[in-house]
Amino acid sequence: MTVSVSVPASDRFDWLFRGVSEIFPHQPSSSDPAENIAQRLAQTDRPLRVKLGIDPTGADIHLGHSIPLRKLRSFQDAGHTAVLIIGDFTARIGDPTGKSEVRKQLTPEQVTDNALAYLDLVRPILDFETPGRLEVRYNSEWLSKLDLGQTLELLSTMTVGQMLAKEGFALRYEKETPIFIHEFLYPLMQGYDSVAVRADVELGGTDQKFNLVVGRDLQRHFGLTPQFGLLMPILLGTDGVQKMSKSLNNYVGLGEDALSMYSKLEKTPDSIIKDYFTLLTDLELARLPENPREAQKLLALTVTSQYHGTERAIQAQADAIALITKPGQNAGGDSIPEFSLAAVTFPARIFQILSASGLCTGSNDAKRQIQGGAVRLDGESISDIELTYNDAAELVGKVLQVGKKRFKKLIE
Amino acid sequence: MTVSVSVPASDRFDWLFRGVSEIFPHQPSSSDPAENIAQRLAQTDRPLRVKLGIDPTGADIHLGHSIPLRKLRSFQDAGHTAVLIIGDFTARIGDPTGKSEVRKQLTPEQVTDNALAYLDLVRPILDFETPGRLEVRYNSEWLSKLDLGQTLELLSTMTVGQMLAKEGFALRYEKETPIFIHEFLYPLMQGYDSVAVRADVELGGTDQKFNLVVGRDLQRHFGLTPQFGLLMPILLGTDGVQKMSKSLNNYVGLGEDALSMYSKLEKTPDSIIKDYFTLLTDLELARLPENPREAQKLLALTVTSQYHGTERAIQAQADAIALITKPGQNAGGDSIPEFSLAAVTFPARIFQILSASGLCTGSNDAKRQIQGGAVRLDGESISDIELTYNDAAELVGKVLQVGKKRFKKLIE
Repeated sequence: MTVSVSVPASDRFDWLFRGVSEIFPHQPSSSDPAENIAQRLAQTDRPLRVKLGIDPTGADIHLGHSIPLRKLRSFQDAGHTAVLIIGDFTARIGDPTGKSEVRKQLTPEQVTDNALAYLDLVRPILDFETPGRLEVRYNSEWLSKLDLGQTLELLSTMTVGQMLAKEGFALRYEKETPIFIHEFLYPLMQGYDSVAVRADVELGGTDQKFNLVVGRDLQRHFGLTPQFGLLMPILLGTDGVQKMSKSLNNYVGLGEDALSMYSKLEKTPDSIIKDYFTLLTDLELARLPENPREAQKLLALTVTSQYHGTERAIQAQADAIALITKPGQNAGGDSIPEFSLAAVTFPARIFQILSASGLCTGSNDAKRQIQGGAVRLDGESISDIELTYNDAAELVGKVLQVGKKRFKKLIE
Repeated sequence: MTVSVSVPASDRFDWLFRGVSEIFPHQPSSSDPAENIAQRLAQTDRPLRVKLGIDPTGADIHLGHSIPLRKLRSFQDAGHTAVLIIGDFTARIGDPTGKSEVRKQLTPEQVTDNALAYLDLVRPILDFETPGRLEVRYNSEWLSKLDLGQTLELLSTMTVGQMLAKEGFALRYEKETPIFIHEFLYPLMQGYDSVAVRADVELGGTDQKFNLVVGRDLQRHFGLTPQFGLLMPILLGTDGVQKMSKSLNNYVGLGEDALSMYSKLEKTPDSIIKDYFTLLTDLELARLPENPREAQKLLALTVTSQYHGTERAIQAQADAIALITKPGQNAGGDSIPEFSLAAVTFPARIFQILSASGLCTGSNDAKRQIQGGAVRLDGESISDIELTYNDAAELVGKVLQVGKKRFKKLIE
């Protein structure tokens, strides 16, 4: 990596500060590379190691997750090494109490499958090609080797009071919701990952601050230079109100097809569109269109391009316009995802097909959507939840639609 | 082991309940061997495994420590197996924060030396001979093999609230004295020892209740029958006020010579003499002498006999009487321990000899004792702290004395 030192650090590192919520430590006027991340980057004579931990429990990956990944890519582009840590150790162990939904126990095969699926989804974001720019590590590599003596040492670096001061714990302790002692180990395990990979920088959401600080403390304890913590905001969902989440149905999954992605983003509320531009694109914020409708289109087109390429994004835009003009008339063309009726046993009822196709989350959802008047077949409204088809041939080539944005072209 | 089941359990187990502070669980009227330890003993068809954990950090072993050991011996005599657990794992690790005086880190050699010294001291108490009656185990055998996943499981069996409710922790948390998280592991490690050795009963002082309960919980967690906890009182020292402790100089070490042991016990205050009889002897309490002076002598003779045999105990009694009559006149005879002056470089000052002989804990203690008028040589008081001897010959054969109970015969 060659970095000219004659340019003031503050100017050269605009990419670094864009959309960041917090950096620690942060002394912008200091020339000490231990206190000022820009100085650290300017003065390094080797690629820095930039850590991001990911969770291989198979959670749906959406645009919210893309934010630290995009920052990681910026580090890669500046010549540094992205160290992607797959938290397989905890996923394999699960929660010993069996009480945590979040920490289900997974088999090694499930963990590997989930990790590969994850890597596949983030392939458009990160640089997988340039040698030395990406390191993927499974944390069982070091955590499974920790013996009880080393674990005691980890635990001895923090007091109960410090741990209970952590936001989540403080609230639970106050409410007398049981906190199981092993929960204290998770931040320390995540922190120890920073020791094991010798991270120079760790990225995370603002909800990760505590864990990143623990990483710094443990690195110091083990005689390493403490990492910088770089916190990114938690993305609001397309409703502009709550944080993006699959369960709130306000999310855009990284695996969604171009039309679906475009259609959702095209409706981004004005209140959050600037944040979306800042966090999800590299566009210069000063030059965004003033017309809100144009801004929405630009955002949708830019983000969709990142995951599907410019050509398919433009096609998705065209399809979306056509669909809005003539809803249901199969105008989506090639952008409309297909659903093979081979997966359905005939005779089949309409709600079963809606559920099987993934257009609805299940039979109950399908019935509700029909009753709510949201379901159309080739533009024709369907209101009978018992409507039955005897043969796939009755449906092949038609477009099944739920609401204004969800379409499936039915094929053999 | 053959136990007749026709005799009521309560009568046959007097030895079990003598001097016990608490047993748990304890339902004396129940015939369920899970709730009533007498029933457990009466109904077992195999020797029970009775655990006692010992600390190999080289702490001075005194009569207070003998109490659970004597109970353990009673179990041995009833046909059961004493499982003596040497806590070498924590001793080898020490306290990772380096803040604990109690948990100094020891080398494997130190641990082994201390453990052997301990076993040597308790040899008069336990049955080391009868096959199957004693099992000595080092807990590093299982604790050093625990990996992080198993440690997580251990930690997950308790909540932070339960742990903080523990007496010592509660007080420290209230006073905001830092509690390091690894301290939560110690009770769980001790409890896991009960799992590893499949203990049926665990003995301990009343200050061990929490740890013994944790042992029960962990055994239950791992699908074993929970052990009984049997708590013995903490012995008061010879001052009759504070608990016995080397640092308070109110203790009787198991390694003390017969005369020293006898002399200390002969002064046992009336207020605690019944407890001493109960906890340190097997004598029938109803038949003790009514004359307090006779009771003191009987106690001193009985306890001294346990560690030095009847003959030497009787000799010690005779020597003690002679010493009180003619203090310092070398009347202690053969019971007086010897100190070889070969260990001293001459010319030597009196305080150096006092320190080297072990009669005083160091030069400062020696000077204080001289200034306090407590030091005599062959009965003659010494008051000059600078008093110097040019040659061992000036001292050989004489008795050096500190206070009324500490003597050393000086030899070549």
